[in-house]
Order: sequence, then structure tokens, then C-alpha cells
Amino acid sequence: MKRIPIFLMGCGGVGRQLLHHIVSCRDIHHNQRLRLSVVGVCDSKSMVVAPNVCSSEFDDDFLLQICELKSSGSSLEALSDLGQCQIYSSQDMASKAIDIAASYCRMATGLTFIDCSASSNTIPLLKKAVELDCCVVLANKQPLSSSLVDYDKLISHPRRIRHESTVGAGLPVISSINRMLSSGDAIQRIIGSLSGTLGYVMSEVEGGKPFSDVVKLAKDLGYTEPDPRDDLSGLDVARKALILARLLGHHINLDSIKVESLYPIEMGPDVMTVEEFLAEGLPLLDRDVRHRIEKASSNGNVLRYVCLIEKSRYEVGIQELPKDSPLGRLRGSDNVLEIYSRCYSKQPLVIQGAGAGNDTTAAGVLADIVDMQDLFT
Amino acid sequence: MKRIPIFLMGCGGVGRQLLHHIVSCRDIHHNQRLRLSVVGVCDSKSMVVAPNVCSSEFDDDFLLQICELKSSGSSLEALSDLGQCQIYSSQDMASKAIDIAASYCRMATGLTFIDCSASSNTIPLLKKAVELDCCVVLANKQPLSSSLVDYDKLISHPRRIRHESTVGAGLPVISSINRMLSSGDAIQRIIGSLSGTLGYVMSEVEGGKPFSDVVKLAKDLGYTEPDPRDDLSGLDVARKALILARLLGHHINLDSIKVESLYPIEMGPDVMTVEEFLAEGLPLLDRDVRHRIEKASSNGNVLRYVCLIEKSRYEVGIQELPKDSPLGRLRGSDNVLEIYSRCYSKQPLVIQGAGAGNDTTAAGVLADIVDMQDLFT
Repeated sequence: MKRIPIFLMGCGGVGRQLLHHIVSCRDIHHNQRLRLSVVGVCDSKSMVVAPNVCSSEFDDDFLLQICELKSSGSSLEALSDLGQCQIYSSQDMASKAIDIAASYCRMATGLTFIDCSASSNTIPLLKKAVELDCCVVLANKQPLSSSLVDYDKLISHPRRIRHESTVGAGLPVISSINRMLSSGDAIQRIIGSLSGTLGYVMSEVEGGKPFSDVVKLAKDLGYTEPDPRDDLSGLDVARKALILARLLGHHINLDSIKVESLYPIEMGPDVMTVEEFLAEGLPLLDRDVRHRIEKASSNGNVLRYVCLIEKSRYEVGIQELPKDSPLGRLRGSDNVLEIYSRCYSKQPLVIQGAGAGNDTTAAGVLADIVDMQDLFT
Repeated sequence: MKRIPIFLMGCGGVGRQLLHHIVSCRDIHHNQRLRLSVVGVCDSKSMVVAPNVCSSEFDDDFLLQICELKSSGSSLEALSDLGQCQIYSSQDMASKAIDIAASYCRMATGLTFIDCSASSNTIPLLKKAVELDCCVVLANKQPLSSSLVDYDKLISHPRRIRHESTVGAGLPVISSINRMLSSGDAIQRIIGSLSGTLGYVMSEVEGGKPFSDVVKLAKDLGYTEPDPRDDLSGLDVARKALILARLLGHHINLDSIKVESLYPIEMGPDVMTVEEFLAEGLPLLDRDVRHRIEKASSNGNVLRYVCLIEKSRYEVGIQELPKDSPLGRLRGSDNVLEIYSRCYSKQPLVIQGAGAGNDTTAAGVLADIVDMQDLFT
């Protein structure tokens, strides 16, 4: 039986779901002769660690207790029965986690750090973990979309870092691109709809509904962030585009990507509250969106908010696309990616499906962990 | 630098292309600190082996010489300058290959046997290789679509066998399904068009062209086997369906799959020659195909020749499908697969793209080899 020791950072929606998946997949992994041992978990305030990370682990009851606690909105500090586990507060967390990684890697194949947070605060610890030959699995986009220095450091052992769930949630995007790259199938162009929210908005406005109504509806359906401008700015898509471009070997930064925001600076969070934006700002954008749709339609095209990577062109924004292309046909909140390469030159390789959701995102993280099993003894 | 020693069986179109890819990817693999060392190659008649498989390998000139020879239609026997390599004839091949595997595995991580043939003759050797803890990569569908005993033997070390290119050529089908399985995302239904030939035929007849004309055109375009009945029988798709069903854990055999042939027994190869079939048999099928298309069309549907796996339902044949589904929209010779699971329940995970061709198939094999690198020291 192979033991993969796991240290989980971030136990919000995705992290919690990952713990649930680990528990419910015990039989599947046992049949693969794998044991996923969670030895530490932290949120932004505290860290809980098993008494001896090399030989002990959290039992499933304890993992489920963590899930329950976190879904009630409490912090790990509130854990009532720690058993033999130790708890550390935020100021001691990072140094203690590094101590554990260092002591572990002297004894066995490294600890696996899983980052399911949405914070850039994890980057220093992840870099240290990489230095100690630990494995890293990311759902968090921040570490790979920050500075190039951090990026190069994090991927310095390429086989020891996986990050499927940073782009398109659990969709097999990163793993498929990696397969193409390692078989020399040079990628010429990637174009995709990588935001379920913006995918939904762009396909709904097509039918004639005003942009402002569609955005409000998307917010009511829980498709957007609490402030819909976090989606409409395109920054989240730009981070995904950056991760894809860097994967293809482009040494670029976030500011190399041309990003089209779907609202003007005058309606930004510094100027308007969310309520003001929804009530007063947003409706002012309807006419322009309508015009653009009509113009595209007169060319037989539709508008999609896409990420485009091609040679030295890195763009995130609205593009006019043929109605009858995988992107043009997209409806609802699915993600879709078209990849053009030597092998897929006339017709692209298309990967499509749900690109958001805790269940799918956590499944992508879990598949990444299992996929690294050959690194462990 | 990690060395992955390779023994290639079958150097027809796919095998030859693989050798080309290996040579042209030297820099890419060098950057990954990998060295793909081809130490043996065989066709159906002969086998060439490097002087010492543990320390020597074929150089790139020799690999390209093999490619050139094979593309001229000659056998390996015709190699003019063997250098220090040894050549064996068909009767000594298998036992010598096993000797090599056995001697190699005493010294290092096992040899990797690559099967790019289309023969079931390789199965005994592959089983022996698995016993010796060698790695196996298949483009050949035969080994995994033969008896269950052979199947269970071949997958007894699941991490040491890869077979992406047995279904959908290089499309990331097997790797994506494996990711879903290992993350506990139970797959409920797979439906796909896995024959570029039949995909082309079914979408072309939709426009009103007679079935017989379309099949003849497909033959002229080189889309079909020399005898188009080899495609029309559905047996090739059935083998792919069997491989997928077994991957999902169904312990079934080829005869558990309900296969619809697109020609009747009376037009089989035992009764008619290819010429007779094309001239006299095929046109007799036009009316029935036309009727079925019209019936589907009156329901707003189209016909596709698909593979369907769902619970204990295993079918390969024509299905009526919504025009506006990924399968219904399929045109040309692309493959497409829709996978429904817990994470992809309302909308499927869709993987689409070229599902045939030596370049793509060989790229899938090469990606499989590179993906096994962590097993090597």
C-alpha cells in the first residue's frame, strides 16, 4: 500500500469537498493500493496537524468533523475534540508547516501540499515546499498567475506540481495540453470560454434580453461573485489565460494580456457600490452590448467572451465568432476550449463541460493527487 | 537524465511515425531530463536488437533508416547496414524478446514494450512482459479486446500499461476517463462516434446523397479499409466499446456487445468480392438507409453510428439523436465522445477531434510513454 501524505491549505467549498471525496473514495483507492493520508489542514486562521505526520493521520471521523465545522462557517479553532492533534495559530502556521515538510522529506517521499485557497498568502510556503522536494497540487490560481520568479520556482520540478483545477475546474484541460506538449504536437492556438458566468451572460443576451437583466439574473442564480464586477472585469479569465500561456512556454506576466472589462472604470468598485452599479451603472451598458450583438449577427456571427492565445497574441474579451463553431454553439454555463495544433489543425481538439463547481473542482484536485502516485514509495 | 528503454512491435504507419516523433522530440524530452532509447524493433518477420539493451540503443540515423525502409514496403530483413545490431527471424523473435526483457529487468526498471501492430500475435509476448514487470503501451486494440483472461493479465499492474491510442487515436479519452474514475466521479453513460469513417458516412448521407455513393466516395478518399465492409461491420467500433466498457469495470466479452452491421450477411466477404459488394450489393441498401433518415428527420433527429455504454447496455450501431447535441452536430470524420457522470450529469463532458491518422495515433503513444516516466529511475 502506497501512502500519499496530504497537507491541505484552504477548507472552504473546494477543500471541504476534497476531504469528502477522499473519504468516499477509500475503497477505490484501496483497490489501487493507495492510501491518501491527510496529516494537516489549515484555514486562514489556524492549522491542525496529526501527532506524527510520518506515521499517523486524521481519521475519517475527524475529517468529516472538519467538513461540518467549516460548512457551518466556523474556523478550525472551534474544533471541539482535537484528540491527539495539535493546533497552531496563524502566526506559527507557516514555519510549523515547513518544519513538518522538512522532517517528513528526510524520512520518505515528500509531503503533498494541496492549495484549495484563493489567496496569494500561500505562495511563500509553496515555494519552500518545492525546495524541500514536496509535491504540490493547486486549485488556487494565484500561485501560478503571480510573478514569473514565483512561477519558475514553483514549476522547477514539473512532475511534482499539478494544477488541473486552476483552469476549467475538473475538465481535463491541463493534462491534455501536457500530453500534447510532451508528444511534440506543437500548439498553435487556444481559444476558449473559461468563465461559466460570462458564457451564460453572452449566450443569454443573444436572445434579445438586456445585458443588465441577464447579469442581475445570473447574480440571483448564484452564478456570479457577490460583486458581479469581479466576473465582468475579466481578471479571473485573464489569470486562467496566463496559466495556459505559461504552460505553453510563454514567459509573460498578467499585464501582457489584453483584458477587456465589461464595465468602464467610471463604474468601478472605487466609484460605485454594488447596489449603485446594478441599479444605475449596468443599464447604461445595455445599448452598446445590443449594438455589438446586432453587428455580429448581421455577419452571421455571435459574440463570446473568450480567452485567446496565439503566437504573441494574448487576449481576454469579446470576440465575434461563427455561430456554427463549438464556441458559437455554446449555451449555458459550460466551459469549452478549442485547441489547434499540428495534429488538430483543420478541426480543433475540443474539450467541453462544466467548468465550475466545488464537486468538479475537488475531483480535478483528487485526480491530480492520484496521478502523482508513482512518485511515492 | 532518465532513460526509458523502448522495444517497438509493429513498424507500419503508426510505428514508423512514432520513431519519427521520438527523433524529432529529442530536445523536448531532453528538457524534461528524459531519454527515450529504442533498443529493439520488430515487424511480423524479423526483429532487430541493439548490441546491449542495458547500455546501448539505436542511434537516430538507424531509426530513420528503419522508417525509410518500412515506408518503401520492405521488411526489416532488408536492412543493409546493421552496424553492431543483431537481427532475428520470426521463429526466434518472441523468445529472444523475452530473454531481453528478463535480463533487462534484473538490472533496471523494466523495458517498455510498445505495440503498434494490428495483430493478436503479440498477446503472448505482452503477457510475458507484464509478468516481468515491464511497461506496456498499446495502440493495438487486439490485446485488450480479446479474452477476459488476457485482459486481466495485461492490466494486472494498472500503472504499467497505457493505451490512449486504442480509442479515438490521440484524443485524451482514456486518460480523462482514468482521471474521473480515480477521483470517484462515477460514470453513468458514454456515447460516442468512434469511427471517423462511419461518422463521415452518416453525416454525408444526411444531406440526401445515396448511402452507396457516400461509401464509394469514402473509399476513394482513403477513409475506409481496402474492403469497406471492415468498417461497415462495426467490429472495429465494437472493440473500442469493449475497451471502454472494461475500463469502466465491466467484465464482459466482445459477444456481450450488440453490434449492428451496416450490410447483411448475404453481402459478406464469404459471399461477394469487394467489387461485387460495391457494384451490386451496396446500392440495394440505399432505400433502407434513406427511409431511416427520413423517419429520424421527421422527429427532428439525425442518425449517427455510435457506441453506447450504459449500465448493462452495450450497443454499437445506428441511433437516432437530437440534431442539437454534440453527436448530432458532428460533421466530417472527427470523433466525439459524450461522458455523463456525477460531475457531468446534465451536460456531458465532451471530447472531440481527429480520431484517426498515424500522426495523431503515434502522438498518443508517445504521450503515454512520457507519462510513465515516474516509474523509471
